[in-house]
Amino acid sequence: MNAPFRTEASFQEVDDRLTSLMDALFHPTGVPGVYGRKGVYEGVVERLAAFISEAREDGTEVLRFPPVMSRRTLERSGYLKSFPNLLGCMCALGGSDDDIRAAVDTFESGGDWTEALEAGDLVLTPAACYPVYPIAARRGPLPAGGLRFDVASDCFRREPSHHADRFQSFRMREYVCIGSAADVSAFRDRWMERAKGLADRLGLSYTVDQANDPFFGKVGVMMAVMQKRDALKFELLVPVRSAEKPTACMSFNNHKEHFGEVWGLRDAEGEVAHTGCVAFGMDRLAVALFATHGVDPAAWPAAVRDALRL
Amino acid sequence: MNAPFRTEASFQEVDDRLTSLMDALFHPTGVPGVYGRKGVYEGVVERLAAFISEAREDGTEVLRFPPVMSRRTLERSGYLKSFPNLLGCMCALGGSDDDIRAAVDTFESGGDWTEALEAGDLVLTPAACYPVYPIAARRGPLPAGGLRFDVASDCFRREPSHHADRFQSFRMREYVCIGSAADVSAFRDRWMERAKGLADRLGLSYTVDQANDPFFGKVGVMMAVMQKRDALKFELLVPVRSAEKPTACMSFNNHKEHFGEVWGLRDAEGEVAHTGCVAFGMDRLAVALFATHGVDPAAWPAAVRDALRL
Repeated sequence: MNAPFRTEASFQEVDDRLTSLMDALFHPTGVPGVYGRKGVYEGVVERLAAFISEAREDGTEVLRFPPVMSRRTLERSGYLKSFPNLLGCMCALGGSDDDIRAAVDTFESGGDWTEALEAGDLVLTPAACYPVYPIAARRGPLPAGGLRFDVASDCFRREPSHHADRFQSFRMREYVCIGSAADVSAFRDRWMERAKGLADRLGLSYTVDQANDPFFGKVGVMMAVMQKRDALKFELLVPVRSAEKPTACMSFNNHKEHFGEVWGLRDAEGEVAHTGCVAFGMDRLAVALFATHGVDPAAWPAAVRDALRL
Repeated sequence: MNAPFRTEASFQEVDDRLTSLMDALFHPTGVPGVYGRKGVYEGVVERLAAFISEAREDGTEVLRFPPVMSRRTLERSGYLKSFPNLLGCMCALGGSDDDIRAAVDTFESGGDWTEALEAGDLVLTPAACYPVYPIAARRGPLPAGGLRFDVASDCFRREPSHHADRFQSFRMREYVCIGSAADVSAFRDRWMERAKGLADRLGLSYTVDQANDPFFGKVGVMMAVMQKRDALKFELLVPVRSAEKPTACMSFNNHKEHFGEVWGLRDAEGEVAHTGCVAFGMDRLAVALFATHGVDPAAWPAAVRDALRL
């Protein structure tokens, strides 16, 4: 349980170029995929957020979520079935003051105090859109044309890695559509085209390809096959680490009736609502920008600097 | 362990004014102190962050941290001794795929799957400055005059509350000084004055008073008395909920040698370094602004709008 204390002073990556990139942008903190972010990096993330805001469609409602969310909401969303291995749960010391003091005494005598932890009612948010569906459901039937949201949160997935394109703690921005099957399908098609235009303006090389989520276990393999067969997920992939293993920096998802059924969402016709989203991996996009254009934003191509108002 | 699933559709507060304020700014999510944030609120938080950036001293290094941090770093910092009751720890399902599948089966048959959770190497960051000290320590002895950092992160403290001025998940911004005793003392005095000027420009009523941290347990009572006796903590208090129970929106802290000793920080003379910080409760300041000036930023006093470039 007690991992050895690491004081890594530098990064490990597939090649020297990415190692120096990581050194220029981040500070290691002793845990892979959890980094202190330098000012130059955060400046680009901020400009990237504004760049994506400029592309927001009219009539889109802005919501921002904290990095934790209701455990019950996520359980009800079906996350535990699909990605139980990736979930981070907030645990705390409960019980009386004496119980808590006993755990601290255990720690101070070198024991494993974490055995006294109890699961709380919160989890670390694994994707920015989960909290929006119950909020939309409280409003009753959807208007014709559905609803659109602009959501964002810090997200967490338990997949420790030293790679520049896989953080455990990362930021996700999403545009979400909740409406009829036709609303969601049109929304996703529209955003797949629009996203290519955004990537062009950022000077990123990319391909767009069908994809599947990394569903857990043997049943998960089947779910992934069906997701791919039904073309429910596409990704915009950028060659960050290599051309052979490009990095998914945006995704375009059609959840069909899944969240509509879970939360009792109905479209204007009374049918179970469909939902879909376009997700921007903010940290992956930012790393992709630095990997493509170099570590000094002042030296980036003029068109990219203009797009980001740098 | 399994709290009942709440679908609260509105807020509870001490009076109707604050309840409508909360309704105008946030969406309940089923967990007290964890809220979806509306666009109007986030707009002000963003402008407030820029307002605080404008006050940054020259030679201050910018760093941003994710909402989780190394558990070992926080343990070593002494947090567990002082605030064990407030700590949120990241736990996850470990073991083999079969173990994880068994936990999911427990969940699906209505059992308590959380018993299978194991403590990870991460905790939810409880204050923005904890990760900065080991980063500074890697650089060797401090330069004359010390170092100054501008840090921020989403923070978490396990204190569920329905009050408008106490969130479990909230944002903290800090200016940090690491240097000689004289560097830190001058830094804190300077910022206590400067902070009053910032609060004036924001049109907030306030008092500045000596304070103490809510240290845990019986020993904690003694620590709090000493902290107050030695004038190590001051707070800028704004009457958000009432004048009798004003809300600490900024704090001014002198940690003396604490972090210097923990991380082996030495000042330019070779003495154990002192550290101090001024912390801005971003969500508390934003709520204070709305509570003071009303829910519509377009109707705020011109001077406040100018200060925030609204």
